Amino acid sequence: MNAPLGVAVAGLGTVGCGTIAILEGRKELLAARCGRALEVVAVSARRADKERPVPVARYRWHDDPVSLAAAADVDVVVELIGGEDGPALALTRAALEAGKPVVTANKALLAHRGGELARLAEANGVVLAYEAAVAGGIPIVKALRDGLVGNRVERVVGILNGTCNYILTTMREHGRAFADVLAEAQALGYAEAEPSLDVDGHDAAHKLALLAAIACGTEPTFDALHIEGIRAIAPIDIAFAEELGYRIKLLGIARRTSHGIEQRVHPCMIPRSAPLAEIEGVFNAVQVHGDAVGTTLHVGPGAGAAPTGSAVVADLCDLARGFRAPAFGVPAAMLQAGEPAPMSAHEGAYYLRLMVDDRPGVLADVAACLRDAGVSVESMIQRHRATTDQPVPIVMTTHATTEAAFDGALAAIGALACVREPPRMLRIETL
Amino acid sequence: MNAPLGVAVAGLGTVGCGTIAILEGRKELLAARCGRALEVVAVSARRADKERPVPVARYRWHDDPVSLAAAADVDVVVELIGGEDGPALALTRAALEAGKPVVTANKALLAHRGGELARLAEANGVVLAYEAAVAGGIPIVKALRDGLVGNRVERVVGILNGTCNYILTTMREHGRAFADVLAEAQALGYAEAEPSLDVDGHDAAHKLALLAAIACGTEPTFDALHIEGIRAIAPIDIAFAEELGYRIKLLGIARRTSHGIEQRVHPCMIPRSAPLAEIEGVFNAVQVHGDAVGTTLHVGPGAGAAPTGSAVVADLCDLARGFRAPAFGVPAAMLQAGEPAPMSAHEGAYYLRLMVDDRPGVLADVAACLRDAGVSVESMIQRHRATTDQPVPIVMTTHATTEAAFDGALAAIGALACVREPPRMLRIETL
Repeated sequence: MNAPLGVAVAGLGTVGCGTIAILEGRKELLAARCGRALEVVAVSARRADKERPVPVARYRWHDDPVSLAAAADVDVVVELIGGEDGPALALTRAALEAGKPVVTANKALLAHRGGELARLAEANGVVLAYEAAVAGGIPIVKALRDGLVGNRVERVVGILNGTCNYILTTMREHGRAFADVLAEAQALGYAEAEPSLDVDGHDAAHKLALLAAIACGTEPTFDALHIEGIRAIAPIDIAFAEELGYRIKLLGIARRTSHGIEQRVHPCMIPRSAPLAEIEGVFNAVQVHGDAVGTTLHVGPGAGAAPTGSAVVADLCDLARGFRAPAFGVPAAMLQAGEPAPMSAHEGAYYLRLMVDDRPGVLADVAACLRDAGVSVESMIQRHRATTDQPVPIVMTTHATTEAAFDGALAAIGALACVREPPRMLRIETL
Repeated sequence: MNAPLGVAVAGLGTVGCGTIAILEGRKELLAARCGRALEVVAVSARRADKERPVPVARYRWHDDPVSLAAAADVDVVVELIGGEDGPALALTRAALEAGKPVVTANKALLAHRGGELARLAEANGVVLAYEAAVAGGIPIVKALRDGLVGNRVERVVGILNGTCNYILTTMREHGRAFADVLAEAQALGYAEAEPSLDVDGHDAAHKLALLAAIACGTEPTFDALHIEGIRAIAPIDIAFAEELGYRIKLLGIARRTSHGIEQRVHPCMIPRSAPLAEIEGVFNAVQVHGDAVGTTLHVGPGAGAAPTGSAVVADLCDLARGFRAPAFGVPAAMLQAGEPAPMSAHEGAYYLRLMVDDRPGVLADVAACLRDAGVSVESMIQRHRATTDQPVPIVMTTHATTEAAFDGALAAIGALACVREPPRMLRIETL
């Protein structure tokens, strides 16, 4: 049995305590599996005196997390502070510069600075690992980087934010409005008091940036991603999706196209028969299409103390066993600039909902806009309500077209006098 | 960049050629990902002159596969010969004894001799890897051994044989009989001319023995497994399963219980809402329940040249990157004897179908047998056909009971004069 691996944990929130609980509760099993013990030697957090679900007083306390990197008995730093800069960045840099590997669950940090940190890790000959940063307990980083290493990945599609998936599932099952379900999710602790990171798609985009990097060998570039959240999803669109045989999901998609690599997070309509359509509630799921393996699907809990702790511990065991792989699957110097394909070049089918005056000629006007933009209609639902002067919905799905063409049609339609609300559109993904 | 990894491939069938196709077709990408090239240097198969989908004449040919182990330029041996003994065993032993790692897709070899070979590998300080032996392209060995290493796995449940899943799916979708669908599957190349390995559950059991070993730290012990195939599944049972809200799947199950670790392969009724119920056709799927992560699901193609080659290449890349983990997750000396829990101690619900005389009193007789065995009925379907003297079906599902109690009831029921065919039973798994 080799010497123990000295572990420092910075950040003692949900994931930090979940990680420590596993390391202590499965000490002997992990030592057997790794050929050496994993020993927490030091911790750091904002407050020492806070009540926590695991006893942390037994470990050496550092007020300054960055000082963990310099401690002689620390072999690996676990960064669970969070945030794309500040102490998380300072600690990660300090540890890598000190020649110590870093295990992190910090998707924001890596989505913004993954390339820089991967280069720093390589320059210092150490590992930068982040299984816990993507899809919680699902070992998807290892699946893509190691298990499917023999593949050129053509497409990765994921349900990457459990809060959004829970909200969309609940809206569909009970026909409720977004704001109503969000408020309830906040009361239940499924959503944060400041929900923007989740419901505006940023959290999913952080994770997608990392998946795209591993899958396609591009530097993570959060700022270049196309990101839309779920605030604008209305119950009427969920109902029409059901009627048309689809379900609405917030997806993160990285896809190789002839125009480059698409990297986008937005609500999608997907066929109800698609495996991802079955993923409900707070679960996460990632579907990978590789040139050799074909399609694989990976499902599991996307958050929580124990599932995310499970992922942190997996990275620690890799280190204890001496495993080394480049952070994003290829040496950092080989990562391509993360210039995604422009959304205007995106090709796909679209869902369009208009609220229009219920009078003759409206459909002809709308159809002319689509025709003029070269967009072909696949199906249509129109319902008249002759007894009221309220606007009525017209719903269409299109055949595959470019986003540029569709945007042109949308602008023209939105300018029609008979169209009473801004048109709503959703991209249709066949997966 | 380090020196290339010299690879010898023994066995040039579907998987062998699929592996070589990936190694040659993605040579630069793999070298970048691994930090060194993977170079096929020698091959062996029964016939040198056979037409193959990849050109193998460029590699050194060995008539005797075992001689690959002794070649100085061979750093790793890929064993794709198959079979639980013979040249596959001889080559594996020779390579490990020569201090060379072995990558194999040979589930039969490892299910019978995994403990012995793991010990041999460890004694010689080399890796024995077998991602391709379980569930084809799904990287489930790595998921269990590395990605979920922080978990005590409570349960692994898998659809592990694509042929059986295809047959059951087709029987259900078209209401056809087993023999009929099997014959068609054979004609289409989805089933072997000698189908026993698949349809009698042995192939799934080989894979389950390996999953159980990694998940529970037990020596693989094929001979101790409870194995039933799908030959006895009748369309009427598939139809009743649907009516009751279930689907019939051939599952491999390893589960910790208070009586020991269950290891069993048999057809099961599972709720239609269970994720595994959605896995249709030739796909494989493995559901893992770990104490930290909760439930994860891993789905993908279970066979085929490219998917299985993808798994072989993953093991080769692990070796090229210098990754070392014990074959079954813990050192071989720590593997527990693979003594599964006795099936008589199994606790669960059951489906029971009887073909009985259509006359008064029959149900009372059957009910008395169940009562006397302490088995409680959950639901029942009985249909009379007053116009014929053909036997009619009685279908029941029970509440949870022990297999010993249920077997007792079954024996008593089978002995009733009114019961015209041997009773049919299926275990119900709630997953």
